[in-house]
Amino acid sequence: MPMTSPSQDGLMPFLAMDILNRAKVLEGQGRTICHLELGEPGQPPAPKVLEAVARALPNPQGYTSAKGLPALLEQLARYYEHQHNVAVSPDLILATMGSSAGFILAFHTAFRPGARIAITRPGYPAYINTIIGLGFQVAEIPVSAENNWHLTGAQIEAAYKKMPFDGLLFASPANPTGAAVDRAGLADIIETCKRLGITFISDEIYHGLDYRGPSVSALELTRDAIVINSFSKYYCMTGWRIGWMILPESLVRRAEVLQQNLFISAPTLSQVAATAALDERDYSEAQKAIYAENRRILTKGLQDLGFDLPVAADGAFYAYAGISKFSKDSLAFCESLLERAGIASTPGVDFDRNNGHGYVRFSYAGTRQTVELALERLDTYLRAGA
Amino acid sequence: MPMTSPSQDGLMPFLAMDILNRAKVLEGQGRTICHLELGEPGQPPAPKVLEAVARALPNPQGYTSAKGLPALLEQLARYYEHQHNVAVSPDLILATMGSSAGFILAFHTAFRPGARIAITRPGYPAYINTIIGLGFQVAEIPVSAENNWHLTGAQIEAAYKKMPFDGLLFASPANPTGAAVDRAGLADIIETCKRLGITFISDEIYHGLDYRGPSVSALELTRDAIVINSFSKYYCMTGWRIGWMILPESLVRRAEVLQQNLFISAPTLSQVAATAALDERDYSEAQKAIYAENRRILTKGLQDLGFDLPVAADGAFYAYAGISKFSKDSLAFCESLLERAGIASTPGVDFDRNNGHGYVRFSYAGTRQTVELALERLDTYLRAGA
Repeated sequence: MPMTSPSQDGLMPFLAMDILNRAKVLEGQGRTICHLELGEPGQPPAPKVLEAVARALPNPQGYTSAKGLPALLEQLARYYEHQHNVAVSPDLILATMGSSAGFILAFHTAFRPGARIAITRPGYPAYINTIIGLGFQVAEIPVSAENNWHLTGAQIEAAYKKMPFDGLLFASPANPTGAAVDRAGLADIIETCKRLGITFISDEIYHGLDYRGPSVSALELTRDAIVINSFSKYYCMTGWRIGWMILPESLVRRAEVLQQNLFISAPTLSQVAATAALDERDYSEAQKAIYAENRRILTKGLQDLGFDLPVAADGAFYAYAGISKFSKDSLAFCESLLERAGIASTPGVDFDRNNGHGYVRFSYAGTRQTVELALERLDTYLRAGA
Repeated sequence: MPMTSPSQDGLMPFLAMDILNRAKVLEGQGRTICHLELGEPGQPPAPKVLEAVARALPNPQGYTSAKGLPALLEQLARYYEHQHNVAVSPDLILATMGSSAGFILAFHTAFRPGARIAITRPGYPAYINTIIGLGFQVAEIPVSAENNWHLTGAQIEAAYKKMPFDGLLFASPANPTGAAVDRAGLADIIETCKRLGITFISDEIYHGLDYRGPSVSALELTRDAIVINSFSKYYCMTGWRIGWMILPESLVRRAEVLQQNLFISAPTLSQVAATAALDERDYSEAQKAIYAENRRILTKGLQDLGFDLPVAADGAFYAYAGISKFSKDSLAFCESLLERAGIASTPGVDFDRNNGHGYVRFSYAGTRQTVELALERLDTYLRAGA
């Protein structure tokens, strides 16, 4: 029973998954595929993280308290002090099953089903599907290539005047565009939300992967926001399903009770790993240096090949490139790219149901070799006439 | 900001958590506490499970496909063939982040927010809180000590006639009573649901821990049910947060899309561990033999001390004992038991907001020594005048 178009309530699968499945079929037939469709680092976590896990392994890994291992919560508080120069009480932190569980907890803590939550378009597809899937309503605020995909307070206010909403879920750096706001931009967004009475949820999962300077946390500017983060990207721990969230004091108890009931606690070994990972940021910085080089090579390469990509993205590990010179149908383009050139990428329609047909997302979280081989193959493919 | 009474929408914390926190304070003061409040095995998973995890550890643990590792899904299909003599396609199985995520996926797959879901009272407190917390409505069907806490089709029908509901979530063996239905009892429940058009969700998390014979899966009787299970209890893997669910063919695609968006995938190392655990049921049977002995000792001991506990429970690792001879307030009784006797237990009000004041749940998932020491302490405590 395939679901390739939205279900009755607007739920829609990732087309990237179909691309991935087809790529695996082709690999099964002996072809080599350049994987530029995956939003996950190819490297394992830092060696000391694995050592900590190996040490803990023989012990019974029971439930932790709902909020998480005290050592992890204290490490996270120290992280905010060192990295962001803000004092965060460990009591306001919850360890979550990835940022995924963080979204569920945030929505049900701050809102009741039926509330409207705004997101940017393009955006991470799980946002809209989670909002709709859980019975909330969605408002999409379009951001544009002309403004480097940045969201502004004025855009929030304009959208709100057309159709009011209760919350704004916003990521910086963002998926799929890599757009990141600076301190002034984030302050503008936060002040606009405050003025309009909108609960601000800051998705900081790509923090650390900001190529223009240190990432700015919403916690540096307000204590009214719900902040969601994860060890998946910067710490190379996607499959460990471990993230965290910080809540305003007025909401943390409800979030804790929801966590007790909806999830009990985050995976215990993953909490052990996460505790160790926070001391291993040098390892993450070494990974980031690889992404930075990949970003330079891929951006230049795509520009030279004629993709619409005026500037390198601010952060994350994605290039969201326009394909106006080649195709008006990003899904068909991605399918052809996979079949004929052996490059797996993600069609823009996964991120933007209105204008995504004109864009493709290339991830450069893999190796430099993969990026270089993909560019060679793209060149050959496009010369042959896409 | 404590929350000791229900919130506006009926959400209520586990009082067991407060007991656990107080127990930890007392332990910090040097007292030894008998932990009979925890619904989790004290043992780690089987040695071969840990070996499989140690072998996998150096590899990057990326996301798996939304449904889970193919090896795990195939092992689960084999499990149903061997253990229950039913053919289940791996395509109908999803690996989930514990049964917790299974409930969220089941509710949002089968229903829309606002739908009414029935559960038994007493029951697992996360049921009611998850139903309410996610914006569904709840119907409670009382079961009674007189009928050994068993649920019948007639009770379902009587409740339905008073207030119709869309789904029934039912566990056998059950928490906190340990009540388990036999094949005829389960068939009665399933047929009643079918006749009334109620979606049946079978929580089989305590399967394997049935002391009267093999546990009967709903899959032996119907393909219209949603079956939820977990590695937490029988396989001693609570903190690994890994479970699974089986869906009817008409629902599996929606569940998969929800999983992609709400959770991405279950923790990868935990999936590796779970795949290995299914081959290690001898280890689980050895644990079960310990629980069976604890069950015998605790049931007899509680009966001798004057608790209302006519028969040993059918399954799981709990004794749900009436305290009519000692107290009318289970929370006060549990608090006193902890402070004065060093025994941590769970007040019945966690499981039954109407009649739970007359019951206490004792878990015997720990060691025989703990059970025996707790009975000695109970004896001294009750002799001193509770």
